[in-house]
Amino acid sequence: MHLSHTLGQAGEQHVIGEIVAAAPSALNGDDAAVMFPDPPNSRTVACTDMMVEGRHFRRDWSTPMEVGQKAILRNFADIEAMGARPTAALLAIAAPTETHVSFVRGIAEGIAQRCALYNAELVGGDLTRGSQLVITVTAIGTLGGSQPPLTLGGARAGQKLVSHGKIGYSAAGLALLQEYGRDLPPELSELWPLIDAHCNPSLKPGRGVIARATGATAMTDNSDGLVPDIAGVAKRSNVHIDLHSTAIAPDALLTEAGVVLGVDPWEWVLTGGEDHTLVATTNKEAPSGFRVIGTVNRGTGLTVDGKKPRYDAGWQSF
Amino acid sequence: MHLSHTLGQAGEQHVIGEIVAAAPSALNGDDAAVMFPDPPNSRTVACTDMMVEGRHFRRDWSTPMEVGQKAILRNFADIEAMGARPTAALLAIAAPTETHVSFVRGIAEGIAQRCALYNAELVGGDLTRGSQLVITVTAIGTLGGSQPPLTLGGARAGQKLVSHGKIGYSAAGLALLQEYGRDLPPELSELWPLIDAHCNPSLKPGRGVIARATGATAMTDNSDGLVPDIAGVAKRSNVHIDLHSTAIAPDALLTEAGVVLGVDPWEWVLTGGEDHTLVATTNKEAPSGFRVIGTVNRGTGLTVDGKKPRYDAGWQSF
Repeated sequence: MHLSHTLGQAGEQHVIGEIVAAAPSALNGDDAAVMFPDPPNSRTVACTDMMVEGRHFRRDWSTPMEVGQKAILRNFADIEAMGARPTAALLAIAAPTETHVSFVRGIAEGIAQRCALYNAELVGGDLTRGSQLVITVTAIGTLGGSQPPLTLGGARAGQKLVSHGKIGYSAAGLALLQEYGRDLPPELSELWPLIDAHCNPSLKPGRGVIARATGATAMTDNSDGLVPDIAGVAKRSNVHIDLHSTAIAPDALLTEAGVVLGVDPWEWVLTGGEDHTLVATTNKEAPSGFRVIGTVNRGTGLTVDGKKPRYDAGWQSF
Repeated sequence: MHLSHTLGQAGEQHVIGEIVAAAPSALNGDDAAVMFPDPPNSRTVACTDMMVEGRHFRRDWSTPMEVGQKAILRNFADIEAMGARPTAALLAIAAPTETHVSFVRGIAEGIAQRCALYNAELVGGDLTRGSQLVITVTAIGTLGGSQPPLTLGGARAGQKLVSHGKIGYSAAGLALLQEYGRDLPPELSELWPLIDAHCNPSLKPGRGVIARATGATAMTDNSDGLVPDIAGVAKRSNVHIDLHSTAIAPDALLTEAGVVLGVDPWEWVLTGGEDHTLVATTNKEAPSGFRVIGTVNRGTGLTVDGKKPRYDAGWQSF
């Protein structure tokens, strides 16, 4: 049996064998996975995220490895956004019978590679037939110690708004893919980091834990768009948040992509989403790896330099 | 906005509001759910299961409430099969834009109703657009105390094989649905419990924990079929398991359904699956609610009264 076979030719047990070989874990293989014991006082954290082919990824734009890596990143960013440490993932796949085994194996390899950065493992899953490729990853994490988790409602007036990671890159990369596919003209090759940011976003592991340990009180990740996500924090915390335009202004790459595509790059920055940049509020200095991008004030709503943002509609599934 | 609207008409936030209203939890609504602290020495248990429309359920055969109930039962049976207690569920749904809000709400109501039996809650989820209705539930549980979990590899020669729940009912119910749909002829109305067992299987909550507390060492649930599932236990435990035909013989309902459909009801019993009956091995008396259905011996493989089973091919996704 080779990886060029389809799922239908290979059969369920063989495909599961390939997944487990690519992402092995001693915790996998029973009715359910029993995790390692947590340290005293810690709490389990969990979230789930579904990726649908054609909607969240395209096989002509992303490698299977990138699809697997992104599936983990999307979930682990949510675990980190509570100030917790990701420890395990579960993978459920629905796939058409003509899907190649190599594609599923590639997803598992991407999952294993990204999990390894966190010392996490793929501990369980499910494989079924479906008319469309659908990937659900569930992430499990551990929130140690007695400090509260970093909720959407934890922002307080007087704090700084800080962020770790690029903002707007994923949306710019998507716009480039929509225009050129993977055939970016050679003269635009310096824009590849934007496409990479869309197909394989990355986040330095552990920043959420560090932010919580050094005084952050609220955190989220930029998944639906900076403005809607931070407006959500403002609303839940009953505060006003002002973004500093100089701190989030499109950089040289975003500006060039905007010129090339005839798009105002501020739209990517303010509403792009899918960067999974961690954004937190803190009374202290910006934690290591974070930079100040705004302030938290008494009041309600979200502004940029005190004014209504130029763009504010983020991602909606329906 | 009414429940007769479609997801596309209602919009993501409204649909999420309906789900959360049907299955409320104080742990839901942030980037990830932070569970209540576990008792000392306990471990977190997790599993995931995907249901695809047309493959695992049909809207003309099951109500949305039944779909939600079954999605929970399938997962919680796997948590119970480790000897653990289910505490939480996460729900990811991909659905076509023309799906009615009432259908999604019904699924959430079924989830809430079944979770309530376990004092568990729907703590998180994801909603996205897809061409096919796909439901992924992830279950989280707690394994208390220092005894080992009930693994597939925990059976020992000299033990009894015990089970809690009906065997073969779900497959018989599916066969009736395939023949009659929900329009079961009035003269066959006594066969409804078989259809119910397929559309809305049930399990008395806590039997897995009780089995572990009273000396069981291995456990699984009858999901792919009794013979393949128990053969899996025999293989992983490196033992021989003999099923007692008198203990698992088709009862009056299965026998009548077999006559009506012209099917040998032993096929449903031996390979039907989806009953999610808990099957355990123990050195002690059968735990409360369980009955003896076989013996564990030195050797390898699985037999019925010492002979090769008449049917042995269970469910395969591919």
